[in-house]
Amino acid sequence: KKTYRIAVLPGDGIGPEIMEEAVNVLSLVGEREGVTFEYKYGRIGGIAIDTDGTPLPQETISIAKEADAVMLGAVGGPKWDQNPGHLRPETGLLGIRKELGLFANIRPATMHESMVEASSLKPEVVSGVDLIVVRELTGGIYFGEKKRYEGPNGEVAEDQCIYNEQEIERIIRVGFDVARKRQKRLVSVDKANVLESSRLWRKVAERVAADYPDVELSHMLVDACAMQLVRAPKQFDVIVTENMFGDILSDQAAMLTGSIGMLASASLAEGSFGLYEPVHGSAPDIAGQGIANPLATILSAAMMLRLSFGMDEAADAVERAVWSVLEAGHRTGDIAADRSKAIGTKEMGRLVCEAL
Amino acid sequence: KKTYRIAVLPGDGIGPEIMEEAVNVLSLVGEREGVTFEYKYGRIGGIAIDTDGTPLPQETISIAKEADAVMLGAVGGPKWDQNPGHLRPETGLLGIRKELGLFANIRPATMHESMVEASSLKPEVVSGVDLIVVRELTGGIYFGEKKRYEGPNGEVAEDQCIYNEQEIERIIRVGFDVARKRQKRLVSVDKANVLESSRLWRKVAERVAADYPDVELSHMLVDACAMQLVRAPKQFDVIVTENMFGDILSDQAAMLTGSIGMLASASLAEGSFGLYEPVHGSAPDIAGQGIANPLATILSAAMMLRLSFGMDEAADAVERAVWSVLEAGHRTGDIAADRSKAIGTKEMGRLVCEAL
Ligand SMILES: CC(C)[C@H](C(=O)O)[C@@H](O)C(=O)O
Ligand SMILES: CC(C)[C@H](C(=O)O)[C@@H](O)C(=O)O
Repeated sequence: KKTYRIAVLPGDGIGPEIMEEAVNVLSLVGEREGVTFEYKYGRIGGIAIDTDGTPLPQETISIAKEADAVMLGAVGGPKWDQNPGHLRPETGLLGIRKELGLFANIRPATMHESMVEASSLKPEVVSGVDLIVVRELTGGIYFGEKKRYEGPNGEVAEDQCIYNEQEIERIIRVGFDVARKRQKRLVSVDKANVLESSRLWRKVAERVAADYPDVELSHMLVDACAMQLVRAPKQFDVIVTENMFGDILSDQAAMLTGSIGMLASASLAEGSFGLYEPVHGSAPDIAGQGIANPLATILSAAMMLRLSFGMDEAADAVERAVWSVLEAGHRTGDIAADRSKAIGTKEMGRLVCEAL
Repeated sequence: KKTYRIAVLPGDGIGPEIMEEAVNVLSLVGEREGVTFEYKYGRIGGIAIDTDGTPLPQETISIAKEADAVMLGAVGGPKWDQNPGHLRPETGLLGIRKELGLFANIRPATMHESMVEASSLKPEVVSGVDLIVVRELTGGIYFGEKKRYEGPNGEVAEDQCIYNEQEIERIIRVGFDVARKRQKRLVSVDKANVLESSRLWRKVAERVAADYPDVELSHMLVDACAMQLVRAPKQFDVIVTENMFGDILSDQAAMLTGSIGMLASASLAEGSFGLYEPVHGSAPDIAGQGIANPLATILSAAMMLRLSFGMDEAADAVERAVWSVLEAGHRTGDIAADRSKAIGTKEMGRLVCEAL
């Protein structure tokens, strides 16, 4: 009997609640498919700051490294917002990305038909949106050198944005690989008219394109892309971009769908290892109330089944179960047109298991 | 009789056509108000590359520096897209910003009622949007040191994002000053959870806030702001942010209105000097056809009247003239629901003059 080890890091806020439902779904999948999922729980973010005095304890890193994949809930909350940098929840997130070499962040933004009304965009603009943002996650201005010093005009602060060819090439290849399995259209987003790192980015993208003659590559400036995502998001199949631009554009793309409580993400290392987490945050305002939407976490688990364990059919089944529950009209509060009819976290998890 | 010297830089593509209409409107304003506008024409962008071998000839800098304000059309086109950096049209744009010390870019995104249908967002989401993005324009990653060298993992490219307190303070003050004249709500956008420059930015914003007790300051992360602009743009009054984030967010905000052919911008130096230009580009695909929308350039001229010449009433009159022409149903092709009824550049310019 095949065994997969899953590191489970529920994190803060609604993290533990939504993770519980994802684990329930996974366990059911395990039974059905005859595989064993072994869960090991670890602390990250605010809860780890409180318990271990650091947002990313060594023990958590070990648990994650020994696992075949990682499921993450969410980190952060007002309690830790005023902390100094090394004691902030998101430092744990940045740390685990770097420690595990999770260089490729995959964020689908898919407009499911039954959810079109939730978008702030016109139905004819968003209906049919089905795009993926591939974001570089361990380089660029996020991890470049930082400086702070006194100068003649007061304090000075510096951030270095740095990329080498190899870092660019491996994420561009992920972009092409993802596009190849879809509509074969890759848009590489940069700011080549201003940034040196973008000029190198574009050059590498052009070079790598030779290996993917079946995929159509085009380039778009980041400001133009922010415009086009608003104007006509259906034009996009796969977008590949660097860390900072990807942070902004993937959140913008997510919000187009109007239902960020439904969006999953994968952060992949070389090979099949990956970390899977919902796109939404820890929502401290509704934590502990049992009303959070667990679907993004459940869909993240589906991505894990597909991308880390190669269990494509099981992944499809989980996704189908989620859509069928939505089509039957069930909604958590965040996506309900009529809030009085909204169901809770546990009920939503149960319905997905039932549909499965 | 008061005389104002205006440097007119039509640039490339549709630049000359739309500029002509703006100059016509200005001349009419001059007659009515009893002031003289003295125009001096200069070359910038592609046309300057072709004629002078550089996108920003010394002569153009002199013309601009001797003027009281600058009107710019647009730069760029496919002809120069493959040129090396120093021979690209946008290098002229970046150069003139730096040469003239234009550190404050002011970009209103206002949803005019008669244009609501042009937006890709739902009417109830965009109707009433009236926000201004104040973007730092001469610092940050745009003007930091750039490097390119060979490393162990191939070529390496670096961009330095650098800000000092004084640069941050003066743009934050512009943000507060603009907000003070409006709804008194300023959102400062940064990425303080990752960037050192953003942490300094936030610290300076907090310090300067003490001088503006009547304005409400809040902070928003750039990714959250990209989301909120899509979800609920009406929440914003004034946004102030650094150069790169401002480039992305101001374009995103512009596109919310669905009518980028109508949006004006000002780039201000200390004092009353400024450069005024439409938000849209040079649109090489429709250049020379007489169908471009001149309204953004005309509205930019109105901003010049107000911000550089203190001619508030004349500025109001130009803006009112533009709205009345739109309310009467006249549209250029870019904003026409029925393209067969669209009017041309000259006709639109003439109608605005008539309404004036
Ligand atoms: C919390 C923050 C550091 C993080 C990022 O900017 O990468 C978040 O916004 C994300 O996109 O996962
Ligand atoms: C052309 C380009 C260099 C410029 C910028 O990025 O500043 C443009 O996008 C703008 O916003 O005026």
